[in-house]
Amino acid sequence: MKGTVLHGPGDVRFEERPEPKIVNSTDAIIRISAACVCGSDLWPYRGVNPITGPTPMGHEYCGIVEEVGSAVRTVRPGQFVIGSFAASDNTCPHCHHGYQSSCQQREWISTAQAPMLRVPLADGTLVATPEIPPDDMIPSLLTASDVLGTGWFAADAAHVRPGATVVVVGDGAVGLLGVLSAKQMGAERIIAMSRHEKRQQLAREFGATDIVTERGDEGVTRIMDLTKGVGADSVLECVGTQESMMQAIRSTRPGGSAGYVGVPHGIEFDGEKLFYAHVHLHGGPAPVRRYLPALIDLVWKEKINPGKVFDLRLPLDQVAEGYRAMDERRAIKALLRP
Amino acid sequence: MKGTVLHGPGDVRFEERPEPKIVNSTDAIIRISAACVCGSDLWPYRGVNPITGPTPMGHEYCGIVEEVGSAVRTVRPGQFVIGSFAASDNTCPHCHHGYQSSCQQREWISTAQAPMLRVPLADGTLVATPEIPPDDMIPSLLTASDVLGTGWFAADAAHVRPGATVVVVGDGAVGLLGVLSAKQMGAERIIAMSRHEKRQQLAREFGATDIVTERGDEGVTRIMDLTKGVGADSVLECVGTQESMMQAIRSTRPGGSAGYVGVPHGIEFDGEKLFYAHVHLHGGPAPVRRYLPALIDLVWKEKINPGKVFDLRLPLDQVAEGYRAMDERRAIKALLRP
Repeated sequence: MKGTVLHGPGDVRFEERPEPKIVNSTDAIIRISAACVCGSDLWPYRGVNPITGPTPMGHEYCGIVEEVGSAVRTVRPGQFVIGSFAASDNTCPHCHHGYQSSCQQREWISTAQAPMLRVPLADGTLVATPEIPPDDMIPSLLTASDVLGTGWFAADAAHVRPGATVVVVGDGAVGLLGVLSAKQMGAERIIAMSRHEKRQQLAREFGATDIVTERGDEGVTRIMDLTKGVGADSVLECVGTQESMMQAIRSTRPGGSAGYVGVPHGIEFDGEKLFYAHVHLHGGPAPVRRYLPALIDLVWKEKINPGKVFDLRLPLDQVAEGYRAMDERRAIKALLRP
Repeated sequence: MKGTVLHGPGDVRFEERPEPKIVNSTDAIIRISAACVCGSDLWPYRGVNPITGPTPMGHEYCGIVEEVGSAVRTVRPGQFVIGSFAASDNTCPHCHHGYQSSCQQREWISTAQAPMLRVPLADGTLVATPEIPPDDMIPSLLTASDVLGTGWFAADAAHVRPGATVVVVGDGAVGLLGVLSAKQMGAERIIAMSRHEKRQQLAREFGATDIVTERGDEGVTRIMDLTKGVGADSVLECVGTQESMMQAIRSTRPGGSAGYVGVPHGIEFDGEKLFYAHVHLHGGPAPVRRYLPALIDLVWKEKINPGKVFDLRLPLDQVAEGYRAMDERRAIKALLRP
């Protein structure tokens, strides 16, 4: 089969790769129905995260189970499944506490931009849908694998509560689905920070009540104006830079919460500033597996339509164009169908 | 009257000071029954925090109300009161959310090692006891003003829950009262990190089930051994150095919580490490006013005896010896009585 391999900055190839096989008895092989390009894929694509050699890509996926190892109990061939980008046993103490993305047996999924995928720890990683979904539901189901699960975790980590005032820093697909998540959790006011018209529009569709285009000091001033000098109850940091993180912390009221899911690049927190900011801080790789059943249910019942973040749809073999379009911010998120 | 003034590193003097008077209609003047030396007073005493000139000292206090301004409604002359080290109006949005130490009108109390004290925003800062307390209860009541309230906040910020496994980093008075607080909140296992025999003993009296004497990598290894490789649910950071903070974060399980109350000195968090640690982080100056009614009640009903942290009792005019003894770690905490 052919699959996606990053060879160096800007150099994505769809090339011959070995077909995945069952390695451990807890594995499953799935035939990919849809995959996509993640904002975090752009870090190595841009050369910010150096790679040491040709690197297979992709960690967001859904599809039909083709084969399972002898120890797999909860999914079976023919089922449609969605899995987390972090494989987990879902039985260790960390999983038990709901932190499957820190599972003691965690393995990162990294070869999903391909027609076939081996998923380790299938029982603890995959969740099946009630039936085979209609084709137009597949994009929304796919989002549960990472981008929606991550936006949801940002909102959960930021303790979004009914009636809350929420700020979302970052207008990428995660930020936009952070808006959707905050809305689902009952936020009354959702301020999206974006200077990109198409993204502002989608943010509003997902539930944003206000748009702030300013950044840095001006952005913080604007948030303070909008919150009568108090700051927001909950702030979602969905970028991962020093500027966005400081924007998030400075926009949070004392006693409020900042949830951060942007993979940090060069972020340092000054202990004293954080101390006097009085914020709750929580984040990390989203424990998507914890949320999968609930998120699949919301999509299945058509209560949410997170698949709208895919504004570019490509055949899998044109994956390189997906990276290019996202890198140039021509696309919010690229859907790939084999 | 005479009061305590820091003139430079190691130079504490008990010298003539102006008697406090009502300045604003929301002020109260109280006659100090007891004050004490705080661990945070040692930062400027040791020259770590430079001072710009002679600096009056002291922010932990309790005593009898002598006089109140015309706008004061909730306390009256003759009552015994305890107040927070941070004066607050207790009505602004931050106070409303329970973060009185970030009150929009906050003023730091800083002249309490003296026989008389002006307390701004008396209604929002002071809490009266049901009656005049017996003399032997005064040390325990005094602790509610800061050191107990701060240990309590550390445990609260670390989300200590019934049945929890808790680690306390720091064996100063705050850490020891963090142990007491965790015990009150129902922690099942409380691991105190201390290499000082007298403090270990008090930690055990307050509820510690285990003592760890190792620090740094060895300390983390020991905690991991004691928690079967999982880490603690809740960790209280009660020192404020880079080493203690990293000790705290590395001892917390993914999804667990680190509460930090040691005033940070030179602490920097690496964003990426914090991200993958998956911990909840919360701290800052303790909102003592939120806890005062409950803590006073626990002392009043003799359910706790936090006054045991005072292992040195001095007349107020010997305050300099209190600083010396704490600086040299001969005393855990020095009580001062006028």
